This record gives sequence, C-alpha cells and structure tokens, in this order.
Amino acid sequence: MREQVEEYIFGLQERIVSEFEGLDPNAPQFKRDSWLRTQGGKGVSCVFSAPPAIFASSNTQETILEKAGVNISIVHGMLPPAAIKEMRADHSTIPYDGQSSLPFFAAGISLVVHPRNPHSPTVHANYRYFEITEKVAEGEEGPAKVVAWWFGGGSDLTPSYLYEEDAAHFHNTLKGACDKHGDELYPAFKKWCDEYFYIPHRSETRGIGGLFFDDLSTEKHARLSEDSKRPRTAEDIFAFIRTVGDAFLPSYIPILKRTNPLPSTEQHRRWQLLRRGRYVEFNLVYDRGTKFGLKTPSARIESILMSLPETARWEYMTDMGTDEGSEETKIMEVLKKPREWI
Amino acid sequence: MREQVEEYIFGLQERIVSEFEGLDPNAPQFKRDSWLRTQGGKGVSCVFSAPPAIFASSNTQETILEKAGVNISIVHGMLPPAAIKEMRADHSTIPYDGQSSLPFFAAGISLVVHPRNPHSPTVHANYRYFEITEKVAEGEEGPAKVVAWWFGGGSDLTPSYLYEEDAAHFHNTLKGACDKHGDELYPAFKKWCDEYFYIPHRSETRGIGGLFFDDLSTEKHARLSEDSKRPRTAEDIFAFIRTVGDAFLPSYIPILKRTNPLPSTEQHRRWQLLRRGRYVEFNLVYDRGTKFGLKTPSARIESILMSLPETARWEYMTDMGTDEGSEETKIMEVLKKPREWI
Repeated sequence: MREQVEEYIFGLQERIVSEFEGLDPNAPQFKRDSWLRTQGGKGVSCVFSAPPAIFASSNTQETILEKAGVNISIVHGMLPPAAIKEMRADHSTIPYDGQSSLPFFAAGISLVVHPRNPHSPTVHANYRYFEITEKVAEGEEGPAKVVAWWFGGGSDLTPSYLYEEDAAHFHNTLKGACDKHGDELYPAFKKWCDEYFYIPHRSETRGIGGLFFDDLSTEKHARLSEDSKRPRTAEDIFAFIRTVGDAFLPSYIPILKRTNPLPSTEQHRRWQLLRRGRYVEFNLVYDRGTKFGLKTPSARIESILMSLPETARWEYMTDMGTDEGSEETKIMEVLKKPREWI
Repeated sequence: MREQVEEYIFGLQERIVSEFEGLDPNAPQFKRDSWLRTQGGKGVSCVFSAPPAIFASSNTQETILEKAGVNISIVHGMLPPAAIKEMRADHSTIPYDGQSSLPFFAAGISLVVHPRNPHSPTVHANYRYFEITEKVAEGEEGPAKVVAWWFGGGSDLTPSYLYEEDAAHFHNTLKGACDKHGDELYPAFKKWCDEYFYIPHRSETRGIGGLFFDDLSTEKHARLSEDSKRPRTAEDIFAFIRTVGDAFLPSYIPILKRTNPLPSTEQHRRWQLLRRGRYVEFNLVYDRGTKFGLKTPSARIESILMSLPETARWEYMTDMGTDEGSEETKIMEVLKKPREWI
C-alpha cells in the first residue's frame, strides 16, 4: 500500500498544481521545494506566493491566488509510547506495553488555497495514510509485519461571503464522490467536519464545512454503523480516498472561476482579512495537525505553517458582521449554525 | 489589599491612556468600554484603533498607534479543583482535598501597544493581584479568611528593528525600578522573561525581553534566594508593583517619541508585519493568559484577544531576516540569542 499511496499523492499534487498554474498563466509559478528529513522521510512542498503591489519593487499584476501550498510528505520513524496509547483507542490491534516505541509510516497530501478576491473562498484538503509495524529485530530480513493502518482526510471550504450555489456545489461534488462508496459516508463525514472545524471561543465554525474523517480501516469504526455499505478492505478504502482526492479540483475550480472576476471593494477586503484572522485562530489554537507539528522537535515548521494566510486582521469589537441583513452577517449566521447543503 | 490594588490599576490605566492620547491629539481617542461579568466582576477596556486609509471611506491621517489596548479587570468566582491543584505547587498554604472549589479574586491591568511605524517597537505590560479565600458558609458574616495571595506581572518590548540604545533604555528603566526593592529582582525577572517569551517552534524569543515574574508573596520563592533583600510583606510587594507599574510610561514613551518620526519604506512595513505574525504565533500557541482565557467558557474574548496586532503577515520561507548584515538579520540574532542590555 505504501508505494500505491506515494504514487497517487505525487500524481495528485502535480495535477492540482498544474491546474492552478494553468488558470493564471501570467502569475508566477508555484515554487517547488523538495526536502529530506534527517530522521527519515521526504516531501515536496509546492507553494504559491506573489507579494502584492504594495510590497513589490516593480509593478505586480494581480494574481488569482494570494497564497497557496500543496504539500506531500512521506515520513517514517518511531512512535513513542504516549502516542501509541492514544492511537490504541481506535486501533485495538496495536500492541502496547507502556514503554516500547513502534515504527510508523505516514504519507499524505495537504493543501490550502487562499485566493485574493474576497468573493473567492479559501479551501483546504488533506488525505493521508498511516501505518504502524512491528519492530524488526536486528539481523532480521524482509518487511516488518503491519499491526495497524488507516486512512484519514477531508476537505472544507471557508468563504468570507456566502454564495449558496457554491456551498451546494462543493458539498454536492464531495457527496457524489462519497456515495460511490457507501450511503453513510457523506452524512457521517459532513457532520464530523462541522464538529472538527469549530472554534469554541468564537462559537462559530471555521467555514461552511465539507468532509472530515479519520481511522478508516478494516476495524470497527466509531462513527459508521457495522451493517452499512462502506469500503472495508484496504483496496476499497484506498479507492474511496482516490475518488475524494480526485474530486478536489471539480469541487473547487468552478467556484474559483465563477467568483474570481467579481468586483470587490475595500470593505470586502477588510472583511476577508478579518475572516482570515479567524482562520489563523483555528489553525494555531485547535487544529490537531498543526498542534502536533509545532510540538514535534524536528518538524518542518515552514510546511506546517504554510496553511496560514498571507495577511490576517484583528479589530477589537469589530462592527462588521453584526448588521442585520448585511452580506457579512449572512455568512456569520451559517458559521454560527451549520446548515445542510443538499 | 483588594481595594488598594483596584484603586491603583484604575489610576494607572487613566494615566497611561491620557499619555498616549496627549502624544497624538489629532488621532481618535481610545474607546472606553466598561463591562460587567455576569459570573462576578467588572472591567474597563480602553482600546485604540484607527483603520488605515485603505480601509477608511474618507482620508484618514496617519496615527502614531495602529492598535492598542489598556485593560483592567477585577473579577471573582470559584476556582475548580484542577486549578487549585496546579496553584498549590507555588502556594503550599492553599488547602486541597481534590474535590472542593475555592473562592478567588483577581485584579489586574494588561496592556499591549502596537505602533504604526515599523521602527517603533510593540510593548506589553501586565500587573496583577490574585487571592484565594476560604469558603464562607451560608449565614456567616464578614470577610472570608485569605488562604493565599500573590502578585505577578512584567513588561517586555518587541521591536521589528533593533535600536540598542532603546533596548538599553527600556531595560535600564525597569532595572532602576526593581533595584529600589532589591538587587536580585531585575536579574531574576529579566531571565524569567527571556525564558517565558520563547517560541520553541521558531527557536527565537518574541522580543528583546524585559521583566516577567509571578507568585510574589510572603512565601518562599522558587527563583529568589531566601537570604536576599527583596519585598517580603504584602505592603512591600505592592509597593514594588507600583514602582514597576509607574515605570511603564518612562520606559516606553521616550522610545516611541524618538522612533515615530523615522522614515520607513514598504520593505520595513513588510518586515514589521512578518514580525507581528510571530507575535500572533506566541500569543495564540504559548501565552498562558491567552490559553487560560480561551478555555474559560464565560471569558470576554474581545479583551483577551485585544493583544493581537491589527495586521499580521506570513510568507513561506521568507527571504527577509536572512541576509548577513541586514537590519532584519540584526534583530534576528538578538531573538535567537538573548542579550544582556546593561
């Protein structure tokens, strides 16, 4: 499975980056950074940035994207006992004696796209495969026995302004991908997404949701009923991952194409930057992946924090988003109370 | 002590806000917000903001400050057993049975000033008094017995560009205030400040330090030797707090006056916003007060997050701050390796 996942995410990264580059041929290309992790592993970060005119020495053309990162990483190492203990809750097959470390392998793609136009939503997606193996004794040959594996991921949309048809398109595309693999997947993962991307101190969600899931394997799943139709073998789950991964471009590109030409004012921009402040709050305070990364001594900080927007804004007691009937209030109502889009 | 602290912080807040308003008579005044906490307590937030020209409908004059907050709060309530357990480490007089809550009282002033000019440093200060009392049984009269109390606080400077004379002035002023109350205070609290404002995932400090201290009471102190001259009674400690609180304006205002007229470029501004990104990272990920506030269900979020700058910026693998000999690299060297300023 390792090689198949690696091949898939490499290809998906390339397709996604090419698509964005094709949309905006006059913009700078994504910067491709290959890196090696001394503790084991490698990755490719593809990052877009174009300093706006105010920070550029020459005249810069407005680009569709403001900041974007499409990263893949394939890493391995040893999992400390504390991490194993936590993972055992959902993966009972992992042996745990309270003191041993176990080898792990993780491969995934993670992307965040912050467009420049305030009417274009930010989007995030992440698909990953995790594997834990037995320790291989010195002198032993051959691959180590896999004691647990699972897939996780999801994709979610964060608009500053609500366009219901875009929200519906995004959810419909993801639902269509899920439904090929089982009826229960979309409703369960849509709900999980609304729960995960919740900002308790603001009593609002980060965006209008999408999919979020973890721990997909042959084992019993805490959020899916035992008798439902769903992918249950490694091959079937990987096929599901490919279907939702492949659905990323069709779920998002039409929205970006439709909203990018819309005219916007400085007030639209101000609201977009305030919303990006909330994005920063969620990512730094609550996002599991970010928190885990920041605590990992040898982690690649630049890859972890590439999810942050180029610019964010905070106003004390802002008056934006409170006037009844305003466009800003319309999105706030949805963030305070997640909706069904289909 | 409660009334004396309350009176002092009210007066200090007024003096600080007036001083900033007097410096920039054409700027909008600080917005004064009095609030009540339904669970017990009150406060006054004094907040400065002036949307820059780009977000204003009419022409706006450039202000000295970009965003600032000078807040006081006087709150009381019940401390859950988990919080009591943690506080007992430094305050052995607190009774703890693992299940009872205890009444607490907290009064403090907290301020953050983000000036507009990239050559002017951000400054933060916070002084507070904390008290834990015995439970008062129903029907009992009179004030509850105090089982533990302590003072804490500090002040630190976060420049985007290093001016050694300003760093020395800031530290010298704070040292002068400390030295009136004991020789050991400045060195111990300067070191504590460098340790506290450290951003592990960036391997750098938030700024060039100042003072940080906590748990000042009649009890033994983990960071001060038993035989040193230092304030040991409630009255003496409160006198020390007033001396360092009063030192805030002389420690900072001359720096602001000197740096505000300095010309700056768009590259200076860009670097300032990148440094403000790090400020956001520290406050949201590590700051104890912010973390505690975000977890408190009924906390006043707008007051807690008033410390965030108006605007912050993140660039993937920025090239700023890496060129040998540049002004940006000069401050980075100090943030990577804290210096003695006196």
